[in-house]
Amino acid sequence: MSDEFDAVLEDIRERVDPGPGERERLQAVVDELTTEIETAITDLPIEADVVQVGSTARGTWIAGDRDVDLFVRFPADLPREELEAYGLQIGRQVFPEGREEYAEHPYVVGQRGGFDVDLVPCYAVADATQIQSAVDRTPFHTEYLDEHLDDDLTGDVRVCKQFLTGIGVYGSDLRTRGFSGYLTELLVLECGGFRPFVEAAADWHPPVKIDPEDHGRATFDDPLVVIDPTDPERNVAAVCSESNVARLQHYARELLADPRVDLFLPAERDPLDTDAVAAAFEKRETTPVALVFETPDLVEDDLYPQLRKSLAGIVSLLDREGFDVLRSDLFADDERAVLLAELEVLERPAVARHEGPPVHVRQHAEGFFGRYESDETVTGPFIEGDRYVVEREREHTTAAALLDSGAVFEVALGTHVESTMANDYDVLPGEEVATLAEDFGVELADYLDPRP
Amino acid sequence: MSDEFDAVLEDIRERVDPGPGERERLQAVVDELTTEIETAITDLPIEADVVQVGSTARGTWIAGDRDVDLFVRFPADLPREELEAYGLQIGRQVFPEGREEYAEHPYVVGQRGGFDVDLVPCYAVADATQIQSAVDRTPFHTEYLDEHLDDDLTGDVRVCKQFLTGIGVYGSDLRTRGFSGYLTELLVLECGGFRPFVEAAADWHPPVKIDPEDHGRATFDDPLVVIDPTDPERNVAAVCSESNVARLQHYARELLADPRVDLFLPAERDPLDTDAVAAAFEKRETTPVALVFETPDLVEDDLYPQLRKSLAGIVSLLDREGFDVLRSDLFADDERAVLLAELEVLERPAVARHEGPPVHVRQHAEGFFGRYESDETVTGPFIEGDRYVVEREREHTTAAALLDSGAVFEVALGTHVESTMANDYDVLPGEEVATLAEDFGVELADYLDPRP
Repeated sequence: MSDEFDAVLEDIRERVDPGPGERERLQAVVDELTTEIETAITDLPIEADVVQVGSTARGTWIAGDRDVDLFVRFPADLPREELEAYGLQIGRQVFPEGREEYAEHPYVVGQRGGFDVDLVPCYAVADATQIQSAVDRTPFHTEYLDEHLDDDLTGDVRVCKQFLTGIGVYGSDLRTRGFSGYLTELLVLECGGFRPFVEAAADWHPPVKIDPEDHGRATFDDPLVVIDPTDPERNVAAVCSESNVARLQHYARELLADPRVDLFLPAERDPLDTDAVAAAFEKRETTPVALVFETPDLVEDDLYPQLRKSLAGIVSLLDREGFDVLRSDLFADDERAVLLAELEVLERPAVARHEGPPVHVRQHAEGFFGRYESDETVTGPFIEGDRYVVEREREHTTAAALLDSGAVFEVALGTHVESTMANDYDVLPGEEVATLAEDFGVELADYLDPRP
Repeated sequence: MSDEFDAVLEDIRERVDPGPGERERLQAVVDELTTEIETAITDLPIEADVVQVGSTARGTWIAGDRDVDLFVRFPADLPREELEAYGLQIGRQVFPEGREEYAEHPYVVGQRGGFDVDLVPCYAVADATQIQSAVDRTPFHTEYLDEHLDDDLTGDVRVCKQFLTGIGVYGSDLRTRGFSGYLTELLVLECGGFRPFVEAAADWHPPVKIDPEDHGRATFDDPLVVIDPTDPERNVAAVCSESNVARLQHYARELLADPRVDLFLPAERDPLDTDAVAAAFEKRETTPVALVFETPDLVEDDLYPQLRKSLAGIVSLLDREGFDVLRSDLFADDERAVLLAELEVLERPAVARHEGPPVHVRQHAEGFFGRYESDETVTGPFIEGDRYVVEREREHTTAAALLDSGAVFEVALGTHVESTMANDYDVLPGEEVATLAEDFGVELADYLDPRP
């Protein structure tokens, strides 16, 4: 088995290790840009320096990745507006054709020698606990890993990133909620290689706590806690979801039990068409229902948390009203966002139980009884246990009717989801859900045949 | 309002107070029987005495009630078989045409002068805490009430019994689970009359504790606790259900707010026919389902607790399997017993969610995943939160199919219900339930238009 594992790793290494040509081209580009940036800095009335960060700086990038990150460090006491202005000035000088992007502050993205380059201004602070903006931390990460990662380990980091990509948990964006590059580097470093990491993960008992510098000062309520070696108060794995930790554990065991290359390659799904989706739901005898609306104009890191929050609200509304949700999911493309719920219950009766107060709470009890005593539309009031009960007319007897009503706006929706839906939304009941296959055939294939 | 209340009471008193003729005839019968029993005792090789007990002894019987209770008290050290033999011997001598009944031990029931007479052997014990059988306690109750109830209060007890009868909570049998005669007497005595009792009950905050002799030694978990003045360890109201206490409170308030005679008269229901029952369920859009079987050959005090236990088991089975029970009921006549459940959910899908272990519990998790990994009939295993989940084929997609299966014998049924059903039972699904109106039209009328 050891041989098989090693053979698979050898195969993956060949795919992910950058060749000498790529390394040289990268170095040439970095050197050239560093000189140009330093020249641009001399035009400024203040001091600053250039530092290369990210996976290309650490030697942990995967062959073919074309991302170069260059940070310009300004004095910590520089007002933020000046930092932004100087940052953009340098960026425009180096990349006259570049474009501006915006994270915590603006930066410039350009191209050089076939690489995509981010040119980002930050503050030069004494250590990572003093940061003024999230990007100030990055140079410390690079410095730490430069010191600790040797050539063997950088190779293992590349393999590990490829594995996490293959099983769908690579990326700390809020859509994926998986493992960042830095987190991957720390885990491989801490475990002493890819294979020991896989063996450790297969046996994890979350919450897992890893503190390479043994300096953690805060407690975290996350399934995986990796204390940042450069900041004792930060969990590098804070964004990692419980499911993604479990997924890693599952595939770690798969890889150990049956080492194979396909675990390193993202699975490609064939999309389902409308008929196939309709047939699948029919076979399951469930009742799907979908809320469909225009995709709010947000970056993914804002969009997906809002969609998730909205779906949770809709699912709890459906459950509360008795349209028991078997499973749910969400999809979005540039045009439409979909909140899908698959129900076990198609319809509720015309009557709904409504419990009143205990009979012995006299004032409330008399009020309740008086309210319903002569109401011909209710059954009761009668007594069950110590309480009055009536059976009232139910407002919505189908989930589609419920979702078509104002009730959806009484649950906690994401802010921009709420405003978009307030403008317009559609409810697709039952079979009509299958028509979503036109745009979301792959997502529906995933939904109807889910894998770990 | 006081006048109205008094006017109603006056009306009820006229209905329930025995006239002088009835009192004289009763006394004559009691005197005559006492003499005959005393004569019969002289034939025995031991000493014994006769004591009249029950409502006719206490003057609290309702006009037209024809029950005379005469107890023969034997020495406390007499072996039980001899007590039973002597008791029957006297009974047969006094009532050659009488019949034997059996409670805790056998006794004889006969008729004399238009009255129904129970002739019951018991032990003469020093006080009620020394009893050897439940009936030994009765003479102490009569003695206590003889001492404490005056003529006004006996009149109020009669009115109170009629009220409790009218609202359906009179009787400590295990079908009714209401108020016994003795309990009624103690409550009226303790409150100082019918009206103060009604006013107190309207304001009760269960658990209510009443201890006339202030000697209670035990604690009880009942909504109404009335410590027996003759036995500090006994709650006279132990059998009283929470609903019946609430019902009393409800109707006490009704009587105070709008005094009227009809509250003292049991409501007569018109039976519903099959069409009316079918129409009622259709309007409610619910799915009724009934288990029907031969009524087990048991006295009501055994039958109804068993039916109730069985219904609770069936309801929890239905709820657990997702056929949410809106309401349920049970009926029985001499031939058939019915467990009725009215469902909110007609059908469940072909798939059912089945949660596996957390992925990090490695051995269980691997076992679960291995079991379902290649099973083409399930969806998954997939990961949700930290667990594996599969969606399996559901065994029963309708409640009728579930109840037709062996699953009903896995719930806690009453012993005799279980053996009867093991022999044979029918499941009436949906509309077929309406055919029960042929025998249970009144019960179904009650069910479909329940009152407090």
